[in-house]
Amino acid sequence: MEYRRIKDQENYGEKSQTDVENQHGKPFSVGAAESVPGSGVSSTNKSNWKLKSVVTIALTLLTSSQAILIVWSKRAGKYDYSVTTANFSVEALKCTLSLAALVRIWKSHGVTADNTLSTSFEEVNVYPIPAILYLIKNLLQYYIFAYVDAPAYQILKNLNIISTGVLYRIILKKKLSKIQWAAFILLCAGCTTAQLNSTSDRVLQTPVQGWVMAIVMALLSGFAGVYTEAIIKKRPSRNINVQNFWLYVFGMIFNLVAICIQDYDEVMNKGFFHGYSFITVCMVLNHALSGIAVSMVMKYADNIVKVYSTSVAMLLTAVVSVFLFGFHLSLAFFLGSMVVSVSVYLHSIGKPQPQK
Amino acid sequence: MEYRRIKDQENYGEKSQTDVENQHGKPFSVGAAESVPGSGVSSTNKSNWKLKSVVTIALTLLTSSQAILIVWSKRAGKYDYSVTTANFSVEALKCTLSLAALVRIWKSHGVTADNTLSTSFEEVNVYPIPAILYLIKNLLQYYIFAYVDAPAYQILKNLNIISTGVLYRIILKKKLSKIQWAAFILLCAGCTTAQLNSTSDRVLQTPVQGWVMAIVMALLSGFAGVYTEAIIKKRPSRNINVQNFWLYVFGMIFNLVAICIQDYDEVMNKGFFHGYSFITVCMVLNHALSGIAVSMVMKYADNIVKVYSTSVAMLLTAVVSVFLFGFHLSLAFFLGSMVVSVSVYLHSIGKPQPQK
Repeated sequence: MEYRRIKDQENYGEKSQTDVENQHGKPFSVGAAESVPGSGVSSTNKSNWKLKSVVTIALTLLTSSQAILIVWSKRAGKYDYSVTTANFSVEALKCTLSLAALVRIWKSHGVTADNTLSTSFEEVNVYPIPAILYLIKNLLQYYIFAYVDAPAYQILKNLNIISTGVLYRIILKKKLSKIQWAAFILLCAGCTTAQLNSTSDRVLQTPVQGWVMAIVMALLSGFAGVYTEAIIKKRPSRNINVQNFWLYVFGMIFNLVAICIQDYDEVMNKGFFHGYSFITVCMVLNHALSGIAVSMVMKYADNIVKVYSTSVAMLLTAVVSVFLFGFHLSLAFFLGSMVVSVSVYLHSIGKPQPQK
Repeated sequence: MEYRRIKDQENYGEKSQTDVENQHGKPFSVGAAESVPGSGVSSTNKSNWKLKSVVTIALTLLTSSQAILIVWSKRAGKYDYSVTTANFSVEALKCTLSLAALVRIWKSHGVTADNTLSTSFEEVNVYPIPAILYLIKNLLQYYIFAYVDAPAYQILKNLNIISTGVLYRIILKKKLSKIQWAAFILLCAGCTTAQLNSTSDRVLQTPVQGWVMAIVMALLSGFAGVYTEAIIKKRPSRNINVQNFWLYVFGMIFNLVAICIQDYDEVMNKGFFHGYSFITVCMVLNHALSGIAVSMVMKYADNIVKVYSTSVAMLLTAVVSVFLFGFHLSLAFFLGSMVVSVSVYLHSIGKPQPQK
């Protein structure tokens, strides 16, 4: 199997990771956390830890502001642009930002085997897979609403947490301790609890088709995330901006296909950027930066950290919304947040014992 | 302080507990789990474990059937007896049952220093304290409804879980591991989540006076529980039925006071057992057996086990009610049950490392 092969190479790669990683080219916009070559293992570990923290915090903040921007844009009633062009713009912007970061690196460190943009079929042949998986998932999203209403769908989306954990274990063959598994179940329960409202019980009336589709979507989304991590970690010494560049190129291609299928007439008649407002531009920018932060988290941390990061972001969003939009927090939100907090704590104290 | 002294004596007592416990007199209605004197530590441990399991399961089943009986009695519309006489009957029945168990023991093992009913002022002078604490708590219960409505009160009662954990740690000086503390917070959050309904958010409008009273009541109830454990464990070799007998004697006295204050006229005019139905008798019997099970859990396990046991009972009750009364389970109930289950699991795997 393809991903099994990736995993084996990754294992091989990981052994040399502490030596070669970050020697050439600095990571996108996280220059402060760069490691100094040859400064010893402890300094590298510390630097890795710093890098991991910075990208995780960046992802959390970007994700929470993302949801706030969505609420803001809904309030402003500005939703008259085509979503497919916005998605394409996000991919294009991410591609441009990765390229800009690479140009800076080339100027300061010169072009090396690790940061050159030229690639081989053998390197990029798996890159379209996550993009295809997301495309299938987005298509399914249109059909699931035949069986599940919107509030129930919000609840079912939390299945992503479980699917990511299970696939992370199976595909990347990484171990979570018993306590970390318990923490992961709690994260899922806590996030769902925090989102409970008077209409949530409808999810219990979801027909079997709805459940099957929700589970398939959770698996697709989890698989895409875990597969991206496998791709990025397969070559630890390869510059992340090069990896991102190629991932985003395929993202652009598949989103172009989506534009042609869904919004061809509208784009042809009204123009590509019709209906874009200041807030639309903010959202595109935010999505692009979040996307890059996700890649960084995959490179320097993992999917588990990503899931925790986005879950905490969901809670932060709610708290910020109280101040911004006068939302009321429910008792369920407090209880869910409590469970999520305990989950984060348990995940951190429950690290598996190092294997001999 | 009084309880500090009890604790010191208890520590001393515990050292000899495995040798002397259960040699004289068998525990009430749990004859199967009796240990054989002189059969070695491993057999004693196993027997203690069995005893602990039996009393815990008994408490769980009795507590869950208790709530079902209450629902049943409400459905039948039979609530026209005076609650104070029912409480007195429960105490009297517990006293009688303890005495009956003692008579059996005296017949089979003879009267010894550990199972004799005669006692000293030094032994029983602290016995009225739990009864007084419960009396104060029950009095407060009438006043708290000026600030808190019934559904909010149900939610606030879960503070008992936290207060029991904290007082258990402080008064009995027993350690819980980090994971067990996390599990305890989860137990509280999970139980509350399982009870969420459309009116639960009202608890957030509870005025400060309501919160203060709820916290005081939680502390009183937690303190009474932990203090009872301290009293019972102070003399590990003392037969539990003797300890129960004296505890229940004071319970009878204080409930007699309550009858005189609240229902004197009604009892005088209509008689003591006015309004008792078959279901009332069932409830009195159930409360009496649950009360004895609580004492057993205090003797052979601890307050933490008691809290877990009654929490699981709450969930069992809800599930059984689906079949008995056609109740519907909410999504919140499933999420809460999930969190409680993980909490039970974490509590069991998170045992503190034995101290050297």
